[in-house]
Formats: sequence, structure tokens, C-alpha cells
Amino acid sequence: MSLSVQSPADFHVHLRQGSLSALVTPHVRQGGFTLAYVMPNLKPPITTTDQALAYKNELQKIDPHVEYLMTLYLSPDLTPDEIRRAKAAGVVGVKSYPRGVTTNSEGGIESYEVYFPVFEAMQEVGMVLNLHGEVPSDASTNTCVLNAEVKFLSHLTKLHRNFPKLRIVLEHATTRAAVDAVKSLGPTVACTITAHHLALIVDDWAGQAFNYCKPVAKFPDDRAALQEVIKEGHPRFFLGSDSAPHPPETKSTCSPTHACAAGVYTSPILLPLVAHLLESFGALDKLENFTSGYGRAFYERPVIKETETRVTLRKVQGKKIAKKWALGQESVIPFWAGKDLNWEIVH
Amino acid sequence: MSLSVQSPADFHVHLRQGSLSALVTPHVRQGGFTLAYVMPNLKPPITTTDQALAYKNELQKIDPHVEYLMTLYLSPDLTPDEIRRAKAAGVVGVKSYPRGVTTNSEGGIESYEVYFPVFEAMQEVGMVLNLHGEVPSDASTNTCVLNAEVKFLSHLTKLHRNFPKLRIVLEHATTRAAVDAVKSLGPTVACTITAHHLALIVDDWAGQAFNYCKPVAKFPDDRAALQEVIKEGHPRFFLGSDSAPHPPETKSTCSPTHACAAGVYTSPILLPLVAHLLESFGALDKLENFTSGYGRAFYERPVIKETETRVTLRKVQGKKIAKKWALGQESVIPFWAGKDLNWEIVH
Repeated sequence: MSLSVQSPADFHVHLRQGSLSALVTPHVRQGGFTLAYVMPNLKPPITTTDQALAYKNELQKIDPHVEYLMTLYLSPDLTPDEIRRAKAAGVVGVKSYPRGVTTNSEGGIESYEVYFPVFEAMQEVGMVLNLHGEVPSDASTNTCVLNAEVKFLSHLTKLHRNFPKLRIVLEHATTRAAVDAVKSLGPTVACTITAHHLALIVDDWAGQAFNYCKPVAKFPDDRAALQEVIKEGHPRFFLGSDSAPHPPETKSTCSPTHACAAGVYTSPILLPLVAHLLESFGALDKLENFTSGYGRAFYERPVIKETETRVTLRKVQGKKIAKKWALGQESVIPFWAGKDLNWEIVH
Repeated sequence: MSLSVQSPADFHVHLRQGSLSALVTPHVRQGGFTLAYVMPNLKPPITTTDQALAYKNELQKIDPHVEYLMTLYLSPDLTPDEIRRAKAAGVVGVKSYPRGVTTNSEGGIESYEVYFPVFEAMQEVGMVLNLHGEVPSDASTNTCVLNAEVKFLSHLTKLHRNFPKLRIVLEHATTRAAVDAVKSLGPTVACTITAHHLALIVDDWAGQAFNYCKPVAKFPDDRAALQEVIKEGHPRFFLGSDSAPHPPETKSTCSPTHACAAGVYTSPILLPLVAHLLESFGALDKLENFTSGYGRAFYERPVIKETETRVTLRKVQGKKIAKKWALGQESVIPFWAGKDLNWEIVH
């Protein structure tokens, strides 16, 4: 048995910098993808058009056969003028990180109102706002990693109400409440879902850092909601892997003073993994739309005949996921390392 | 400033076996405690009176100056006859572990009805039933580590209704729902609270195995409920540290196939830690009752003049917690290793 997907597109991926980037950037295509929507949370973050173009250039040097869609990091430095410059240069989106909730988010936002002129400009020129949809933890309001996403949803609704034509993507949704909220909003609001959140619940990352990421995986019913909305074929829900490589030692070891890094790495196995997962809950027929069609439609990035890449998967009896990928001094351990997948890419 | 506690009693502690036991058993007194209510989840579990007495003997050899209250592990092997034998030999309680939810609980129970004759005998002779109050995770019923305790509470209520004179302790409560449930039940139902659950919420163990234990720490509001019931001075809520040593490498490292061990180790710093925590939420005046009076009253183990041990604490400006305790090849890393406490024991 085999099936194929037209020009798979990963609408949320971390490609890092330097030698780690050299290792992981080729994994986009290895995982079956020809479009990468690239996150800007580098050190320093990508806050200007020039930085975004320079970063894109670095990525193209590593693998010129992927279409990189670049994003800027929402920060006080970003102006409406810079938005227009970015749009003209082909930058596609602006990513908003709440302060301190994930990797390199120390410069993240604290309140949205101050960015309204920027959003106005984005709406005008047609740029996409990508939201890391969590509020910071705060014991005084009973806010923690478990309800950080649910408590964010009112911000999403307000932003959509203020900027109804601004395309907004709630990134890496993990809860039924988020799925319901996005469904309830207009056609300019979409939602990415990662591969790993289709597999994990809170039990899986309790004491197991290789399954630990932000937002954390939640209840079984939340996972079910993510699966259901894909099975339903809702066109505003599509894949953004949030594949986030970290050096293995930062995942595998912690000390009383250092926690493990948050992030799950799925790039090199992404399309087979998504096929495996969708099949597990009876949604294999949605594979192409979830991994290509819906996201491309929302981002207005249709497949162009001349550059179409059709990726074929074949059903296999347990193909082992590699335990590690390495290049020079860099290495990375993928999600489900050593486990079996039921699909592989036909090369 | 100083204060003293009359014969502190830890009503839930893991003293392990062999060389690890030799390391950690003396930490009971080092942490300021003269009574240890000893958990039976060894390999193999303590299921008979003879085993319990042999284990007690081992512990006494390591440190004869602690009063060890022994428990049996609830399993199908346990009979009403054995209960009477255990009671006559001074064994105090029977611990019930739901199957597979924590360290060495593979032999735990799946349903309580089958144990009703045992509970009947326990009620008759006056033994205490100690409940690890979590149901096993089950995605089909949306059960996971976050709601495992709340979903257990109906079992607690039913057991109490069926055996109203049986003293039952819900161990290491972590939720407001558990606190409310115990409060709502009769005087034969009590609840232990650990030191670490007064400090931790879910964010603290996300990616940080040294704060990871079962039951997992929950929401800020749940932690607040534990603090409030202590501050209120409710006599059926008292300290059981659930101090659980694990070899450091099983805490500090995980791999894609091995999760970190669940358990937080507080024994060697227990009384200063509890004083520090109670002070942080304005309950220092409850220290003696929480760490001695209430538990001893419930267990009918009053302080006897002749053996009374008064432990004095003095306020200090940041006493560093040791980063590690070691004996021979064994070592263990305590909770809050390297952090400062505001109280120390006066020797």
C-alpha cells in the first residue's frame, strides 16, 4: 500500500543557527517536506527584514531545495514601516511569544495593545500573525503550564475582533478549548497542530524529558480533540511540527539547578510519523490536506505545477526510527527514537 | 529566634533496603524525626508479619533511636488471620497501592471489594489503612496523572462508608478536591501532606525530574488548598513526607526509552524544610501540631514523657541544603539541593 502527498508544507519549524542548523535544516526534506515556515527565536531574535533575509540566505546555502517562509519576532523594535519593508522582501509572518514561556522567549511580549499599529500594518499588507498561545504562569491567578493556553484564548478572540482581516495562526494547539475557540472564529483564524501532540498526554512527559515541550501535552480528551478536528477535515487546522532540536545532553540530563530543555524533534521523520499517527485514529485520508492543502490555502501558497514535489509513502512492517542524527560535533535525538513507524518515504 | 517540636513524627517515609537503606535511615533523625511510619513497597513487597518484623529489625540495626511503625503491602496474599497476627506483632497499618502508579507498585490492587474481609479484620483490631489515592491512567476515560487523585476520591468515600470505624489515611494529598473530601468525611479519615507538595506546582516538575514524584504536584490553587488546611490547623491533616530516595543517575538522566524515577527526597532536611515552608505561608505556629501532635493523635501514638525528644530549630540567614548525601557507593540528592533554608536544627 502506498499514498502520496503533494508538496508537503511544515508551517512551524525551528531551524536554529550555525552547526546545529547545518545538521537539522536538511532534515526538512528528509522528513518529506519542501516548505518550511521558519521560526525567528534565534539568539539574537530575528527582528528586522535584513536579519530575516540573511537567515534565509544561510538556510538556502544549507539546502536550496526547500522553500523557506521567514518570520519576524514580535518585539518593541518592530514598526509599521518595518512591516511594509518585510512584506516587500517576502517575509510572511510575525511570531509572538509571551515573555519567558519557551526557548529564547525572554524578549517576548507582555501585552498586545502596544502592538496594535504593527498589527494594523500587517493586516493592511497581508502578513500573518503567529501566536504562541500561552500566558505566563502566575500562582496568584492559578495560572500554570496546564491552563496557560486556555487562559490565552480570550487574547486570541480579542485580537481577531480588533483585526478581523488579519490572518492569525494559533500555533501548536494542545487543548479542546483551543480547538473550539479557533473553530468559533472567522475564516482568518487558523491553528497549527504538531505531530507529537497527536501522540502525547501529560503522563508521557512526566519524568520523560524527550516528550517534554511547550505547550505541554495535556489530558487524553485534549489529545482526542486534536485528533477529531483533523479527522473531521477542518480546513483551518493544519500541520506545524514545532520540531525543535536541542543538544541531547540538554534533553537527557537535568540537575537540581538545571531543568531539561523543552522541545520535541520530529523533522527527519515528519511525514511518515504524521501518516502513522493519522492512521492510528482513522484519519489517513486527511493526510494530504493536513500536511499540505489546508496550510497552503490559508497561507496563500498554492502548489505550483512547475515546482510540485509529490512525496510517496509506503506502508511497512515497523520501520525503526533512528536513535540519533549527527553531523560533526552536533547531534539530535528524535521523537520516538528507536520506535517503529508503519510508513516510510519512497525515494 | 528559636522554636521546638515535641518528638516529630513522619507518617510516611521510604527507608528502602540494603546499602541505600544504610544511607537514608539515619536521615530520619538527621531531619529531626524520632518516629518513622515505614512504607512496605520493597522488592519483594512486605506482605507478611514476619517480613515486617525482619525489616524493622534491619532498620533498628541501622538506627535504634527511631520508633519504626511498620506496614504491610495490600495484596491478595493478605488474609484476616494475617491481619490479626500483624496487629499482635505491633504492625500498625496496611498500605494500598493502585496497580502500576508509582515505584514498585506492580503488585498493587485493582479493586477494593475483594479486600473487604481484610478491611473488616483491620477495623476490628484497629489497624490503619493507608491509601495511595490515585486511579491508574486510562485514556478512554480521560484519566491521567492530573486527575488520578480526584477520580480516586469516590473510592475513599465508599471505603469510609463501608468501614466507618476503620482508620483510613489518604496519603500525600495534592489537590483541593482531596482536602475537601477528607474534611467532609468522619473522624476516622485523615490525610498526610508532604513537604514538597507545599512548595511545588506542575511547572516545577515540567522538565525537572528532581521535582517529579507521584502523585505529581498540581495547580497553584491545589497547593494553596494544602497550605490553607495546615494554616487552619485541621487536626486530620498532618505530615507524611513520602521522602523517597532514588540513585541520583535515575533522577538526573533519562533516555527515549527510560524515564526518570518518581520521588522527592526530603528526609535529611525535613523539619527545617517544613518550618521554612510553613513560615512562608504564615503557618509556623502550626509546626508542632502538623509534624507531631495531629498525626500522633490520629495514630494513637502520644508522646510518652520518658521517651520524649524535643527538637529545637533556630532561625538562620540562609542555611544551604547539601547537594548530595553519600555512604559508600550510595548517594542521594535531596529536594532543593543547594538552596537556602531559613531554619536549622540545634544540636
